[in-house]
Amino acid sequence: MSKREQIAFNTVGLIGKYNDPSVNKTLQGLCSFLNKRDCRVLVDCATADSMSQQHFTSASIDEIGEQCDLAITVGGDGTLLNAARDLIKYDVPILGINLGRLGFLVDISPNEMTTRVAEILDGKYEIEERIMLTTTIQHPDGNTSSSDAFNDIVLHKWETARMVELETYINGKLLNNMRSDGLIVSSPTGSTAYALSGGGPILEPDVNAMVLVPICPHSMSYRPIVIHGDSEIELSVGGFEHAKAMISCDGQKNIEVSRDDKIFIKKKNTNVRLVHPCKHNHYEILRAKLHWSENL
Amino acid sequence: MSKREQIAFNTVGLIGKYNDPSVNKTLQGLCSFLNKRDCRVLVDCATADSMSQQHFTSASIDEIGEQCDLAITVGGDGTLLNAARDLIKYDVPILGINLGRLGFLVDISPNEMTTRVAEILDGKYEIEERIMLTTTIQHPDGNTSSSDAFNDIVLHKWETARMVELETYINGKLLNNMRSDGLIVSSPTGSTAYALSGGGPILEPDVNAMVLVPICPHSMSYRPIVIHGDSEIELSVGGFEHAKAMISCDGQKNIEVSRDDKIFIKKKNTNVRLVHPCKHNHYEILRAKLHWSENL
Amino acid sequence: MSKREQIAFNTVGLIGKYNDPSVNKTLQGLCSFLNKRDCRVLVDCATADSMSQQHFTSASIDEIGEQCDLAITVGGDGTLLNAARDLIKYDVPILGINLGRLGFLVDISPNEMTTRVAEILDGKYEIEERIMLTTTIQHPDGNTSSSDAFNDIVLHKWETARMVELETYINGKLLNNMRSDGLIVSSPTGSTAYALSGGGPILEPDVNAMVLVPICPHSMSYRPIVIHGDSEIELSVGGFEHAKAMISCDGQKNIEVSRDDKIFIKKKNTNVRLVHPCKHNHYEILRAKLHWSENL
Amino acid sequence: MSKREQIAFNTVGLIGKYNDPSVNKTLQGLCSFLNKRDCRVLVDCATADSMSQQHFTSASIDEIGEQCDLAITVGGDGTLLNAARDLIKYDVPILGINLGRLGFLVDISPNEMTTRVAEILDGKYEIEERIMLTTTIQHPDGNTSSSDAFNDIVLHKWETARMVELETYINGKLLNNMRSDGLIVSSPTGSTAYALSGGGPILEPDVNAMVLVPICPHSMSYRPIVIHGDSEIELSVGGFEHAKAMISCDGQKNIEVSRDDKIFIKKKNTNVRLVHPCKHNHYEILRAKLHWSENL
Repeated sequence: MSKREQIAFNTVGLIGKYNDPSVNKTLQGLCSFLNKRDCRVLVDCATADSMSQQHFTSASIDEIGEQCDLAITVGGDGTLLNAARDLIKYDVPILGINLGRLGFLVDISPNEMTTRVAEILDGKYEIEERIMLTTTIQHPDGNTSSSDAFNDIVLHKWETARMVELETYINGKLLNNMRSDGLIVSSPTGSTAYALSGGGPILEPDVNAMVLVPICPHSMSYRPIVIHGDSEIELSVGGFEHAKAMISCDGQKNIEVSRDDKIFIKKKNTNVRLVHPCKHNHYEILRAKLHWSENL
Repeated sequence: MSKREQIAFNTVGLIGKYNDPSVNKTLQGLCSFLNKRDCRVLVDCATADSMSQQHFTSASIDEIGEQCDLAITVGGDGTLLNAARDLIKYDVPILGINLGRLGFLVDISPNEMTTRVAEILDGKYEIEERIMLTTTIQHPDGNTSSSDAFNDIVLHKWETARMVELETYINGKLLNNMRSDGLIVSSPTGSTAYALSGGGPILEPDVNAMVLVPICPHSMSYRPIVIHGDSEIELSVGGFEHAKAMISCDGQKNIEVSRDDKIFIKKKNTNVRLVHPCKHNHYEILRAKLHWSENL
Repeated sequence: MSKREQIAFNTVGLIGKYNDPSVNKTLQGLCSFLNKRDCRVLVDCATADSMSQQHFTSASIDEIGEQCDLAITVGGDGTLLNAARDLIKYDVPILGINLGRLGFLVDISPNEMTTRVAEILDGKYEIEERIMLTTTIQHPDGNTSSSDAFNDIVLHKWETARMVELETYINGKLLNNMRSDGLIVSSPTGSTAYALSGGGPILEPDVNAMVLVPICPHSMSYRPIVIHGDSEIELSVGGFEHAKAMISCDGQKNIEVSRDDKIFIKKKNTNVRLVHPCKHNHYEILRAKLHWSENL
Repeated sequence: MSKREQIAFNTVGLIGKYNDPSVNKTLQGLCSFLNKRDCRVLVDCATADSMSQQHFTSASIDEIGEQCDLAITVGGDGTLLNAARDLIKYDVPILGINLGRLGFLVDISPNEMTTRVAEILDGKYEIEERIMLTTTIQHPDGNTSSSDAFNDIVLHKWETARMVELETYINGKLLNNMRSDGLIVSSPTGSTAYALSGGGPILEPDVNAMVLVPICPHSMSYRPIVIHGDSEIELSVGGFEHAKAMISCDGQKNIEVSRDDKIFIKKKNTNVRLVHPCKHNHYEILRAKLHWSENL
């Protein structure tokens, strides 16, 4: 699940929760600390503007990707999800600091932040690789749209109370037809997010798999299906003449699809690399977030 | 669950599946048969236009309600659902003939149609009463919208990939807050429709109850809740500033709602009265429709 | 759901959690308080032995039933369930005091106990009626066994890894055949107990209904079914030659059943009468016990 | 998921459904056919006795394992499951012929049998590798018990209506504590068997994973968990003093466990090798067995 490496983190990018000034104090503390450790610091320009000036450079997310050895997000899981999608092409490892409320991905709290970051700069850390998904939509006019998702790519009915008819192929073979409100294609990372609301199983992050979770399927015989992580999924939307639906990536990026579009989903060639302190225990996070063992 | 009465069915209304010429043959057969039995026949004007002229009167749905002792629908469950909502204020008993495919509500097939209708005209029938739901939405400007539903009244998120925050009160007392894709409020009749897709239980038609089925709730601790049929439900939508959602009645009638609307749902004072042949067996329908006993 | 009455509670029975000395302090406090209020106090003999002598009479559970106007249980939900079964034939109202941990049924905590009991003795209380279930098993030799349950009557496979084949009739009509690990027949009260573990819905206590929850059914088309509270259920066990199964009432009383037994389940003619303080709010208990609203 | 190889199948073992004479005709047809193709035929001695003598040798299952290049089972999925467990140490590929009713594993029907077997003897076939599970139980006296399972290893409560307390470790790390009726540890092959009844997801056979499905867990926050196929699971049973439970392998082999036993479960080093005709399509089997697409 994880391996130790030794990367020198000389240039560090900081990315705060979008449009939330409550991250500033934590970011500034982090910035001071990194300066003391002689790191060069780039701060995401969306966040930098509202911070009092310190020894950092305001930078675009792409400049952070190009120049940094490590990116640190401060916020919730959503902030890290966004950063992971933006930085995937630069292969920068990412560390997540929460704002006081544990997330599935952001596992360092502000009060232990300097201790943990110090250890990590000293080379005491683990890298955990996680798969990211990507979708390409072929429109009938020959154009294509595409987008990435760390959690999930969801096809849902849009602006209609009627179910959508969905045809699913795996590696070119028909899996099934289904009438439903939609379909969630989730990575292991996303299995504790929307897929869980839809009744899906939890996938351990190191399982090379995706899970297909139908949303309110019309028949009782549909269940979540766990498929090999190297599979290519193809979806198409049927049903009434003007049927339309929406593809949502991590609930953030939406692409409208209609009856003649072909939707392809697979995992990206590059993995997200999460940085964790050495004693990181994924099960502790699961137990805390899912309120396990409460009745014992 | 059902009781025998003796109503003379002298004037009969016929309502066909909307915009589907395949019902004409069955309707014409029914019309001839009823003429022979000296019944006066009114045919829903939306259907009548495409039928070759016979001894019937083309009539609006309200004229059918006002003048008929019995309404017969020909189509699927959807046709009967629509007729039941339209006719509820006239208290006309309804008989459902399917078009060859058994429905939960339309339990007479065309090939046994004349035999069964003859028996019913002879007074051999059962009346089954079923509750209907109604919603009233109070808008902040003082206006109200309202609509009825035989199956279900569904609040769902609209034009957004984000969950909606929902507050539910029963008889003025807070039941819970919930983040989800929506909430299904279903009658016993609707419990085998959309509510079943959402993971709800089956309610026998004679249980005086409604069931609240959350759609993809954000937390695992929400379950379908069966409440007393005489309860009044109040819902309101919270969440992000421009949150909007849609109320759908039987998946047919949609009313947009926003953060400042108050949504009230309760059962109507009048019941739908379904007419069944005497040997009607609801469990046979359940077993056939839900594919029970297949593995034995 | 509840109505106010005015019963004078002159003789009060106290029943402690079985074999748990931690109830003694609460019982003794209660006993002193009731003495001051000039109530005659009977203490369940199973508990009385370990208590230091005070002004109470040690009594059998039947003597409590015969002589008391009110029974107070001290313990958890299990203690009240047992008392409710034992006292049902005496129609004594029951009040539940928990030992520091809220239950679905025992809603008064020790630190508010004297205040609440004082109010109740002063006539400020509500009586909530809840249905109780009963089963009668007809053995092929003509003998019968029977037992009551406040939560649930469960048929489960016994001493076998194989599924049991089960045939279910409602009011003499076949509902279905099913292969499964068993079937839970639950009252509304039991819907938050074992039936919930089996995937059942929550039933409000005032719904006149029972819910049938299949345990690990062999086919995906089985769902919990909510039936009218006045129905009579008949079960029989099929399958392999030496198939046996167990009927458990509230998880406490077990009766072995085999292929030639007929199992009848219905609600008892008498209801359990729970006493609550006037501001009793069932939804508050649900929210607290089921951890609702946690994510908001 | 599958690869083509070229093994010469000179010696073929035949294994019929246990104690079911209806397999004899198919077995005899198969035997004649294989003789014509100059294959040496060994027939499982449990089946051979009831067959009229032909050119085959009656053999123990171990002799089949030692001498055969191919084993053919005739029966249902259960017959193939048993053969797979018995033959795993001999690494013999297995082909499954059903008795007229499609199974998830036995995908050749008797009427196409000779055509398909001819193709396979001609080298036109695919080998699909599937993981098998194994459990070792360490008793406090130092003894160990062990058993294999192709579908699932299930821990369930035994001779009690009470839940069992279960502690689960993955690779030495605590996953969770849980009160439940038991836990199903399933291979991808078993995900369409008992695990599906327990609410588990479907796992494609080529996913290197196991799924842990809790049976009627006491809290709503437990879900099926898909873990890496190379993980080692450790279970222990807690709860009341005389708590006992049963480990069942494929529902066939039972080992009693108690509070001081340690139960280890992992996948075996050797895979089961299933032989399929070239046009084998796993999704067709899923669609047929699970009644998918019925409503469209």
